[in-house]
Amino acid sequence: MSAQVIAIDAMGGDFGPRSIVQASLACLSATPSLYLTLVGHPLLLEELIASQPGADRSRLQIVAASEVIGMDERPSQALRGKPDSSMRVALELLRDGKVQACVSAGNTGALMALSRHVLKTLPGIDRPAMVAAIPTQAGTCQLLDLGANVDCSADNLFQFAVMGSVAAQALGVVRPRVALLNVGTEDIKGNQQVKLAASLLQGAKGLNYIGFIEGDGLYRGEADVVVCDGFVGNILLKSSEGLATMISARIEALFRHTLMSRAVGALALPLLKRLQADLAPARHNGASFLGLQGIVVKSHGAAGVQGFQSAISRALAEIQENLPQRLHGRLEELLL
Amino acid sequence: MSAQVIAIDAMGGDFGPRSIVQASLACLSATPSLYLTLVGHPLLLEELIASQPGADRSRLQIVAASEVIGMDERPSQALRGKPDSSMRVALELLRDGKVQACVSAGNTGALMALSRHVLKTLPGIDRPAMVAAIPTQAGTCQLLDLGANVDCSADNLFQFAVMGSVAAQALGVVRPRVALLNVGTEDIKGNQQVKLAASLLQGAKGLNYIGFIEGDGLYRGEADVVVCDGFVGNILLKSSEGLATMISARIEALFRHTLMSRAVGALALPLLKRLQADLAPARHNGASFLGLQGIVVKSHGAAGVQGFQSAISRALAEIQENLPQRLHGRLEELLL
Repeated sequence: MSAQVIAIDAMGGDFGPRSIVQASLACLSATPSLYLTLVGHPLLLEELIASQPGADRSRLQIVAASEVIGMDERPSQALRGKPDSSMRVALELLRDGKVQACVSAGNTGALMALSRHVLKTLPGIDRPAMVAAIPTQAGTCQLLDLGANVDCSADNLFQFAVMGSVAAQALGVVRPRVALLNVGTEDIKGNQQVKLAASLLQGAKGLNYIGFIEGDGLYRGEADVVVCDGFVGNILLKSSEGLATMISARIEALFRHTLMSRAVGALALPLLKRLQADLAPARHNGASFLGLQGIVVKSHGAAGVQGFQSAISRALAEIQENLPQRLHGRLEELLL
Repeated sequence: MSAQVIAIDAMGGDFGPRSIVQASLACLSATPSLYLTLVGHPLLLEELIASQPGADRSRLQIVAASEVIGMDERPSQALRGKPDSSMRVALELLRDGKVQACVSAGNTGALMALSRHVLKTLPGIDRPAMVAAIPTQAGTCQLLDLGANVDCSADNLFQFAVMGSVAAQALGVVRPRVALLNVGTEDIKGNQQVKLAASLLQGAKGLNYIGFIEGDGLYRGEADVVVCDGFVGNILLKSSEGLATMISARIEALFRHTLMSRAVGALALPLLKRLQADLAPARHNGASFLGLQGIVVKSHGAAGVQGFQSAISRALAEIQENLPQRLHGRLEELLL
């Protein structure tokens, strides 16, 4: 297997550089073909690496960046005001072919704006979308957009559908069923963008468009790809995460209630915790930006060490799948 | 206690008149002060009543309506094309003061359009909103709009916030915390409508506006009233319902896995089922239309007998609370 080189925006995220450095070192230990380039304040990063016992520096490089983009900074400010931010420098390494993917836990809006500016989108794509696999009764479903685009036109939704379908195919789904998330399944339901996107998708050749899907149908596993605007996708994802947490808490309380159930609770809780983790994919697995000329994976801001490791693994998988090239090929057939 | 009279659109809903008649008779048995007026095809309704053993007809009246609005009919068609629909006739009884509330399991869009047309909105309200209580880690939260308005202006969202606050107060919350559902809690996050609604709410006197809330914050119970457009609210509600069902199914499977866990499963499942029911409030409890000159409760189309009974109970409670009058008074203070 050939080597993979990934640039890490080492300064972003709610937990900051410490957990990112820790996750990076863990990934290097686990994957002998992996090379990482940490981007950020060199002194700080050196110090954090030195503090990790037994850190292997041989496949780890540091590239200096003097600025950091805050979690609540405006994307426009990140774009214009900070030419030497860790996020931007990491993306420039990707653009210049020095790495094959970029991973960041930083400000989503800034990552979106900078990715578009530095890497550009694939031909036929106006705006990249954020996608992650969410669990359903039948397996998983690729949900997009998850928050990169709060306002979407019908054209955007159409392009998301095409990208989601290609991504699902790359992940092994033979004829991905693509659906538009809506408030009902009848033709008359929904807002203008959704209705117009439906008519675009009905006319698209080579796409297995199955129509509208509702929120419950998504979790029943009625589609392999579910398309919505980033406002709706973000609310769906985060409320699902919150609901799963609430249910876990209630079940824990239930099992603490009686002595007998406490014994079984000990048995069931690890499984419930795993379920909960499954239900928070963006936090635990990272989400991809689709539609860019390059692989960019966004780790959840509050992901912690394990979450960031998963995001690096996802970037690795996309390098091996050669996802942007595959997308490019299919988009040419479908869109141009 | 004085009598309550409620009109029932007996022809709507996925399960049709049979379960509506059954639910109506059950409510009459349970509440001696209740009078019901079933609206629909008299012969069919008489037959269904006769088929229920021991049905008490003394507080049950039938009013004839020759037309039925289909579940996938356009609201405009329901409004213009069917002057004698069961839904419309029931709303006209309410308008004319012959009943104190109206309950329907029919087409949501049609019920919204007909309610506005027949009853009119309260002064200061452009569009009514659908609200239901959803469970949180801290208790419950009034979520609106749940699907009556797929496109909302900042003014609509502002009015929903005011109405939700008043409804929560009527339900006993002393100083309801009102939040706007958004993709982040920072000021720069969200679409134009949400940002503008936030600035309107920041300036509103007598309203305990606490800012933006995310999907996970909602389930953590960080607000008593959560406001969003009907597209987002509907997706949130139905996906939550679907997720809760999926989790229940997985837990059931978990408990069937081993002999020991099967024994405890029998203990835990009733509690899990109750949890699941809690998580589908629109299905189980009915949702209110707020902002009309009259009480209208929408039962879930697929509610079944118990769900429809709950919707009737909700209408009863709103009659006792005198909700439209209370709303009217507060709206005058806050909006005019």
